[in-house]
Amino acid sequence: MLVVMKAQATPEEIQAVCGYIQQLGFRPHPLPGAQRTAIGITGNHGQIDQGILEEFSGVAEVIQVSKPYKLVSRDAKEEDTVIRFSGTDASIGGRDLAMIAGPCSIESREQAFAIAEAVANAGAQFFRGGAYKPRTSPYSFQGFGEEALQIMAEVRERFGLLIVSEAIDNEALELIDQYVDIIQIGARNMQNFSLLKAAGRKRKPVLLKRGIAATLEEFLMAAEYIMSEGNYQVVLCERGVRTFADHTRNTLDLSIVPAVQRLSHLPIIVDPSHGTGKRNKVIPLGRAAVAVGCDGLIIEVHHQPDKALSDGAQSIYPDQFAQLMDEASQIAAVLHRNVPRGIHQTETVAAK
Amino acid sequence: MLVVMKAQATPEEIQAVCGYIQQLGFRPHPLPGAQRTAIGITGNHGQIDQGILEEFSGVAEVIQVSKPYKLVSRDAKEEDTVIRFSGTDASIGGRDLAMIAGPCSIESREQAFAIAEAVANAGAQFFRGGAYKPRTSPYSFQGFGEEALQIMAEVRERFGLLIVSEAIDNEALELIDQYVDIIQIGARNMQNFSLLKAAGRKRKPVLLKRGIAATLEEFLMAAEYIMSEGNYQVVLCERGVRTFADHTRNTLDLSIVPAVQRLSHLPIIVDPSHGTGKRNKVIPLGRAAVAVGCDGLIIEVHHQPDKALSDGAQSIYPDQFAQLMDEASQIAAVLHRNVPRGIHQTETVAAK
Amino acid sequence: MLVVMKAQATPEEIQAVCGYIQQLGFRPHPLPGAQRTAIGITGNHGQIDQGILEEFSGVAEVIQVSKPYKLVSRDAKEEDTVIRFSGTDASIGGRDLAMIAGPCSIESREQAFAIAEAVANAGAQFFRGGAYKPRTSPYSFQGFGEEALQIMAEVRERFGLLIVSEAIDNEALELIDQYVDIIQIGARNMQNFSLLKAAGRKRKPVLLKRGIAATLEEFLMAAEYIMSEGNYQVVLCERGVRTFADHTRNTLDLSIVPAVQRLSHLPIIVDPSHGTGKRNKVIPLGRAAVAVGCDGLIIEVHHQPDKALSDGAQSIYPDQFAQLMDEASQIAAVLHRNVPRGIHQTETVAAK
Amino acid sequence: MLVVMKAQATPEEIQAVCGYIQQLGFRPHPLPGAQRTAIGITGNHGQIDQGILEEFSGVAEVIQVSKPYKLVSRDAKEEDTVIRFSGTDASIGGRDLAMIAGPCSIESREQAFAIAEAVANAGAQFFRGGAYKPRTSPYSFQGFGEEALQIMAEVRERFGLLIVSEAIDNEALELIDQYVDIIQIGARNMQNFSLLKAAGRKRKPVLLKRGIAATLEEFLMAAEYIMSEGNYQVVLCERGVRTFADHTRNTLDLSIVPAVQRLSHLPIIVDPSHGTGKRNKVIPLGRAAVAVGCDGLIIEVHHQPDKALSDGAQSIYPDQFAQLMDEASQIAAVLHRNVPRGIHQTETVAAK
Repeated sequence: MLVVMKAQATPEEIQAVCGYIQQLGFRPHPLPGAQRTAIGITGNHGQIDQGILEEFSGVAEVIQVSKPYKLVSRDAKEEDTVIRFSGTDASIGGRDLAMIAGPCSIESREQAFAIAEAVANAGAQFFRGGAYKPRTSPYSFQGFGEEALQIMAEVRERFGLLIVSEAIDNEALELIDQYVDIIQIGARNMQNFSLLKAAGRKRKPVLLKRGIAATLEEFLMAAEYIMSEGNYQVVLCERGVRTFADHTRNTLDLSIVPAVQRLSHLPIIVDPSHGTGKRNKVIPLGRAAVAVGCDGLIIEVHHQPDKALSDGAQSIYPDQFAQLMDEASQIAAVLHRNVPRGIHQTETVAAK
Repeated sequence: MLVVMKAQATPEEIQAVCGYIQQLGFRPHPLPGAQRTAIGITGNHGQIDQGILEEFSGVAEVIQVSKPYKLVSRDAKEEDTVIRFSGTDASIGGRDLAMIAGPCSIESREQAFAIAEAVANAGAQFFRGGAYKPRTSPYSFQGFGEEALQIMAEVRERFGLLIVSEAIDNEALELIDQYVDIIQIGARNMQNFSLLKAAGRKRKPVLLKRGIAATLEEFLMAAEYIMSEGNYQVVLCERGVRTFADHTRNTLDLSIVPAVQRLSHLPIIVDPSHGTGKRNKVIPLGRAAVAVGCDGLIIEVHHQPDKALSDGAQSIYPDQFAQLMDEASQIAAVLHRNVPRGIHQTETVAAK
Repeated sequence: MLVVMKAQATPEEIQAVCGYIQQLGFRPHPLPGAQRTAIGITGNHGQIDQGILEEFSGVAEVIQVSKPYKLVSRDAKEEDTVIRFSGTDASIGGRDLAMIAGPCSIESREQAFAIAEAVANAGAQFFRGGAYKPRTSPYSFQGFGEEALQIMAEVRERFGLLIVSEAIDNEALELIDQYVDIIQIGARNMQNFSLLKAAGRKRKPVLLKRGIAATLEEFLMAAEYIMSEGNYQVVLCERGVRTFADHTRNTLDLSIVPAVQRLSHLPIIVDPSHGTGKRNKVIPLGRAAVAVGCDGLIIEVHHQPDKALSDGAQSIYPDQFAQLMDEASQIAAVLHRNVPRGIHQTETVAAK
Repeated sequence: MLVVMKAQATPEEIQAVCGYIQQLGFRPHPLPGAQRTAIGITGNHGQIDQGILEEFSGVAEVIQVSKPYKLVSRDAKEEDTVIRFSGTDASIGGRDLAMIAGPCSIESREQAFAIAEAVANAGAQFFRGGAYKPRTSPYSFQGFGEEALQIMAEVRERFGLLIVSEAIDNEALELIDQYVDIIQIGARNMQNFSLLKAAGRKRKPVLLKRGIAATLEEFLMAAEYIMSEGNYQVVLCERGVRTFADHTRNTLDLSIVPAVQRLSHLPIIVDPSHGTGKRNKVIPLGRAAVAVGCDGLIIEVHHQPDKALSDGAQSIYPDQFAQLMDEASQIAAVLHRNVPRGIHQTETVAAK
């Protein structure tokens, strides 16, 4: 932390700030400049409240220096985290990109199987599907709950796909943990700290979506919540942020991919379906996400989007997903990465 | 809903859109214009997915007309909702402004009593205090839980103040419901629909804070979640939104006060403490909130903000709060409203 | 400037950064901390490029310390700037609030006189009116140019009001300078540096509106452009910023008023007409602006807004303006300030 | 335009709105729904002020239907605009991507030639360089003006590169028009309508950058200003928008590329240098821009960025640019597009 004094601050004012810092058990380092004095603060225990220093007479501003994240940071672990799925050759965070596809909501066994078959044929390794849906309106379809989870378990059995589904509260989390391979925490719950801690006590990988107005630091701190409870298998996911721009539902912020990769060892994937909210923009932005260097895509696919119970407008058709797989694969090659086609069992898959 | 066709759309394309609308059980109303045709849609059951219509050949855009909120709307109830607190003369939403004050977190009995005494003396009717704190970092102070709630119950007993505290998850909600007069749902949980529904099943008033990036519609729909479960005592609270502006922690959006009042019968108060994040801006923005016509203020007050365990930098001193009460009172009078000084028991106060 | 090194930075990396700083003619101050080293930089000539330092091996981040504004700053001039208008008792920036009112565009002598008479009767001292209109569409009404300026000169003659009008380019500026008392620079031109410099060479006060996405620093630097050319009579104006919020045309950011007052000696007024874009929000937000402590209001008033050639929807009626004057006056009194009623000639008014 | 009435609106209120619409010379189309009535408006002359309708008794809201852009629209011209440069095989908007590279500012002949040689060797066809720099601070380097333009003319002579430089005001525009092949209008001037109209009277292509907070509609309307004066050779450029996100200088909004392509026939390129403000993000986002389907890139390149007079931190090195050319080329091929390597004279190049 650095306290910048005003140009006309008196020695007494500077001394008062230093005294206060010492009194808190920290060490002040006054640093006189040509125009004004700055005071550096060091010390390895506790925290100083920035606002109190700002109120001292003669203080121009207070600047935060050290970063609050620990376990998510490359300072803590330099090499990339690679998440593996026992019994299969699938992984997230290594050379292979993770392709996750499926409907917004599980609507029926027929629907789930039709879409799962299509995305498996196109080469996806992961199947996404909603059992519990966070909806803006209480009158909108809220998901089929455990019934949907059972259908997804059948999808895994039948097509060998790994399963991703969202937990919207602690109750749903307990059930989801029994059925899925990856627990999703949605954007609206990125700062539901109670849910993050509960997910941190599970031993399944967690797919954590960025909140609609989350800074990079808040995003990483949400992952820190999960890791601080002992679950180190966190996959970050950019899904668009809210801005003034009105030509897409959200503004997909692809620059966060290299920004995360610089600071953290955790993998990061991209969701161009929610990131744009429009079917005709999913493929272009999906390609762009691969080109920027992300570790995978999560895509809403529906065979009959005009009959979908939710998010039909942003779901792409199975043949569009196949096209996206092809293009993603070619672009990944430019980055010396790989889009695997299909999942292979290395041993019997057990419900983990 | 309104489908706007492109200028060069053919009669066949228009017919295809109309046919699809009819097939869904709605009634299309083609409306030829000088340059292009628009198609109105009416019908009173179900919902049409905007995105599917946008993909039809010849369609320029699709515009949503009807609003999704029902119970929160002035269409449903024209007169203002006034929330009363049995056994007292306090209310929220009528001519009297509700002044809520207290520390960010309850830190000790001494701290709580010192602050409660000060704000009661200044005339506040409501005492706020955190027992469960949603913090960006898992390593920050998280609140003293039930112990803090017990202290607040003693504050009510001793000073007659009504108690407000935040529920951060369903577990905390059950406890809080036993101790407080108003259950607060924080900004980060504004779309924690599971928690909203649980709060809707309680019979205490709910203070619902606007999410950091919530539109007016999403804010009202969050209140709709609570009301749809049968709890009609909802108080909305503006507490700043996230923008590019960096001179305050959030940008306080006072225009939402008249905007809510136009659409909804629910009361709306303002939190200039979180809305600015800086002590020296709380009083100016608190005055402005009263001048814009809000139904009350919620203010962080601490007698020793430099020792506060959280949010010290935005907490004002007791004498500053007294000044704010005075100024609020004078400004309220300009709007023919009133800032009551102190709470009066009309009968024995029971934990409701 | 402060360079924060990574936790694992080597002494050689720290030395390399220090060496580079010295080589540029600055003085590095390494400041070892418990976890990492920070390097302060001092020196009073030139500028260091932050990005280059960020690219050095071992550097975690680079933080800017000193502020770029000089003349606008309270460091340069501690007491408030008060702008006076010779020959009258009007002023901006002192105890009196400046009330500026008039139509968006001057449409005819009849229209201008009707509105001028109404706002003068209500007590306004300044008359605003557009001669050159910056419009999003090239097909919208663009203003009547010099003809409008001549009408405004007649308004001054007849009603004694001081005149404000916007210069949209250097050509218009030359003409406007001949006719008006205050030259307005609009939000879209806040970073039209060529126009700012030209306005800085005039000797009339300049009303500078905040850009739609301008930070506090950019806003002050735009004023610095004007002052750096020798014109020290700058009035800042908050008129709403662009955010995700869609219930008003812009989000009025009243917190910038105390923020400006803390850093700068320049007066700041508020425009609730553009700040909200909706007639029914002008009075509430106008009241709030006075309550927050601004130095005046600029309000669009039209006697027949349904026939206005521009901005009719946000123009208030003359009787609404009279109501706002009354309420502003009462609220100003709470802050020990004054809303003067009418302008008084202290000597003959000359075109300054 | 569509007027949506409140649920409880009376027949008299509906009639009053219809009467007002007719009185303005438009035709009202009342459209009764199950819950409320909407009134469509048609007519081919003039404009109706939305706000006035909103103030009518019984009106819930007013929705704008028709779009204001004409010449930029695919309604006006269905096929893509391809801009060609006489005497060369270079083009913007067709199958070939336009690669524009060079320093932020022209600092000297040596600097310009060194960079021009490097980018020409890497295959760029266009050379960018600033002669007039819009800078936030009046004390920052403002460019070398005509001297810089003369150096760029020499660069064209020597390396055959086409020249791009920014006009910051009408005076600079006249000079720039004599020297360059493409006139750039910067983000800060996107709504400097006076400058847009002046550029529209030139016969050189105009590269129009998106304003930092411009909506898609405002961006297209700025292009419409240029086209409405008779200059149809407009190239749009996305360069990042301002949001709450603080990990990059701006948030690059790649979704605007397909959004523009859907509505307009004009080419659109991307500037990842300003779009991110950080050297280490230029290549990833440059790749992403090509993958999303843009028509070219504009990149800041400097051989000695640590000595650059402006924007050194976001300038990439010549060998990084060569790497970007390679990767862009491979990704373009996936989209069946081409990154040409070098420019070829088809006849003598004349200053156009």
